[in-house]
Amino acid sequence: MAKADPDRVLRDLYMLREVGRFKTGVHRPTLSPDDMQTREWLAGELRAIGHEATIDGIANVYGKAPGDGPHLLCGSHIESQNEAGWLDGALGVVYALEAARACAEDPDLTGKSGVDVMAFADEEGHFSGGFIGSQSFVGDLSDARIEELEDRSGRGSLRHCLDQAGLAGRPRLQIERDRYKGFLEAHIEQGDWLESQGLGIGVVTSIVAIWQYAVRFEGTQNHAGTTRMAIRRDAGRALMEFWRRIEEEFPNAAAERSVWTVGGVTLDPGAPSIIPGGAEMLFQFRDADPEVLNRLKSLLESLVQEANDRGPCPCSLEVLGENTPAVMAPELQAALTASAQEITPGNHALMPSGAGHDAQLLARVMPSAMLFVPSIGGISHHWSEDTSDADIALGAQVYVDAVSRLLKGT
Amino acid sequence: MAKADPDRVLRDLYMLREVGRFKTGVHRPTLSPDDMQTREWLAGELRAIGHEATIDGIANVYGKAPGDGPHLLCGSHIESQNEAGWLDGALGVVYALEAARACAEDPDLTGKSGVDVMAFADEEGHFSGGFIGSQSFVGDLSDARIEELEDRSGRGSLRHCLDQAGLAGRPRLQIERDRYKGFLEAHIEQGDWLESQGLGIGVVTSIVAIWQYAVRFEGTQNHAGTTRMAIRRDAGRALMEFWRRIEEEFPNAAAERSVWTVGGVTLDPGAPSIIPGGAEMLFQFRDADPEVLNRLKSLLESLVQEANDRGPCPCSLEVLGENTPAVMAPELQAALTASAQEITPGNHALMPSGAGHDAQLLARVMPSAMLFVPSIGGISHHWSEDTSDADIALGAQVYVDAVSRLLKGT
Repeated sequence: MAKADPDRVLRDLYMLREVGRFKTGVHRPTLSPDDMQTREWLAGELRAIGHEATIDGIANVYGKAPGDGPHLLCGSHIESQNEAGWLDGALGVVYALEAARACAEDPDLTGKSGVDVMAFADEEGHFSGGFIGSQSFVGDLSDARIEELEDRSGRGSLRHCLDQAGLAGRPRLQIERDRYKGFLEAHIEQGDWLESQGLGIGVVTSIVAIWQYAVRFEGTQNHAGTTRMAIRRDAGRALMEFWRRIEEEFPNAAAERSVWTVGGVTLDPGAPSIIPGGAEMLFQFRDADPEVLNRLKSLLESLVQEANDRGPCPCSLEVLGENTPAVMAPELQAALTASAQEITPGNHALMPSGAGHDAQLLARVMPSAMLFVPSIGGISHHWSEDTSDADIALGAQVYVDAVSRLLKGT
Repeated sequence: MAKADPDRVLRDLYMLREVGRFKTGVHRPTLSPDDMQTREWLAGELRAIGHEATIDGIANVYGKAPGDGPHLLCGSHIESQNEAGWLDGALGVVYALEAARACAEDPDLTGKSGVDVMAFADEEGHFSGGFIGSQSFVGDLSDARIEELEDRSGRGSLRHCLDQAGLAGRPRLQIERDRYKGFLEAHIEQGDWLESQGLGIGVVTSIVAIWQYAVRFEGTQNHAGTTRMAIRRDAGRALMEFWRRIEEEFPNAAAERSVWTVGGVTLDPGAPSIIPGGAEMLFQFRDADPEVLNRLKSLLESLVQEANDRGPCPCSLEVLGENTPAVMAPELQAALTASAQEITPGNHALMPSGAGHDAQLLARVMPSAMLFVPSIGGISHHWSEDTSDADIALGAQVYVDAVSRLLKGT
């Protein structure tokens, strides 16, 4: 069996942590010099084990193993959120690289079957909605869409940033579906569920859907000193009342693992002496069950109706996104479970993913699965994000063992 | 008696409306080319009636009437809020100009007593807290403070904008207190109280105090998909609960004319998929009675205590400002009331000002008073702000009559 070398995995992850280091985490926005340095590094490591490696026109790094036998596609993203953690993305790329190395070293596989490695571009959404690398690879990103995208932190258009990174004119690679048995992505859990259960390995059953909305209230902007309380149409206050009703009612309609979040609030104009004439809330909820999603949507709509009945500020709902849950492939889940049970018995569980991942795009075109390792304190998207070395090592062993099982059909 | 010429008043106001016109209002930020054009115009009009007129080093326009007898200081500000109304400020300047003209035309007064005219700079606070013109004139603005101020819309420092406007190196004028019987400022009400009472003239008894706070909540920033509801420390949600309690409790502690406003809310980082780790609310209340102000402050502090007892997000209160109400001079109120009663009997009332005005700074150093005209629909700080021509004309007549009374001691 191909086996992981945990020391090699930890060495690579610690090395990547130094590129764009921020406190104990990293700051590697997509297409930044630090991000491109890690992509070039990955391509070099892949070439060193005989892969044909390229960085394509959207900054996906693709390393194709030699041989025309059955392969697995393995990977994740390599850029980070701004001033964020060292493992979100990088872990899944380094596990994939380790699996590719282990297969290359396995006399039963080398030159025939193996692991093609992907480091997708901008899963984290520095340019709008995220996932542009995996979207591009599965044929779901148009050239026209690329022209629309802008960096959220003011670095300019995606096209400009691609040019600056030296990727102008490169073709965008498309997946060869027939080459693969499936796609495998490892990731930190980003929640505290594994930790709270005292478990080391999560096998993902599905990736939850995110349903996201802008809720807007229209009031009358006026002077905060001269406008009597009785005649105010305060859009901010209307938003607060709506928010209060969400927090009252959602617990009654939600399922055990449903989550909902008011992530942003804007009062217009937002000045201390002006009664807000407009107010906007960014609201989302997540669940893996379409029935629950529909129930929560109905509740949201009824709260909008209630707000309009209550007055005095008209309330409107804009759908920003309503995707479908991505179900993970049973045969890949089974391989991950079997490897976990053999290597670390009783230390794993099936679980949904509350976060979105590139695997949800790949699941549209071929069998896909994910392995989770615990996040200390459930923290992610923050520089203090961490996972113990022991859990990182164990995850790599299970991951590579499952890859070996799948390629050898054992 | 010196008398107002309503046609002249309306002509000047309509002319000013064309400088920096925005829809039916104006956009004349302090020290913008349009703002400076109106200041130059005013200085020219003042020189035309024999005043010694200057624009000083903070952009105050000061026109000194000939003669060493008793004078009144009259005026307001001339810049506007961004994309705001045509009368907020300009009305009080044009009334003052009209009073100066009427006195200059009155054989009993001309060359002896009269009206000095002020157009203060930046009452509207394009550069931080506002009132810098009147602060400077009463000796309450240091050079060091000027160096700190920055334009809120990104035009750079106050010093830079003064240089651009050609005011570098000019001295800042200081009030000659002994020259004046008092200060008089006319203004639109900016509320709907006069309109709701069917009245044409408001005589201001005091300018309310504004007590202003930042209320902050500290949570734990985390991923909105992977963090279970039960373990969240959502700073935004804590802010919402606090806001709800404000709206529940303030009506019980407030006086009839108290007002309170949540003008701004910021969730940090404010992204749809991130649970806010921090939240800040800008909150203010206003009243003319120090006892009521103290009662509301106590309530606010008790709500902060309650939020900290409730948890899980620590709540803190920062005082941004707690000024004192400015009482208007009885003898000036009496003159305005007498003139109103003579010109338009039964059409006036005493009232507090819910908005801050330059008169509150002048009231620190000499007797000061204000006259209000109605605002249609109570709208201000918006381009649709308006007052009928008839009300503008009536206000000018009462204003100039009161000036004449005060100068002649009748």
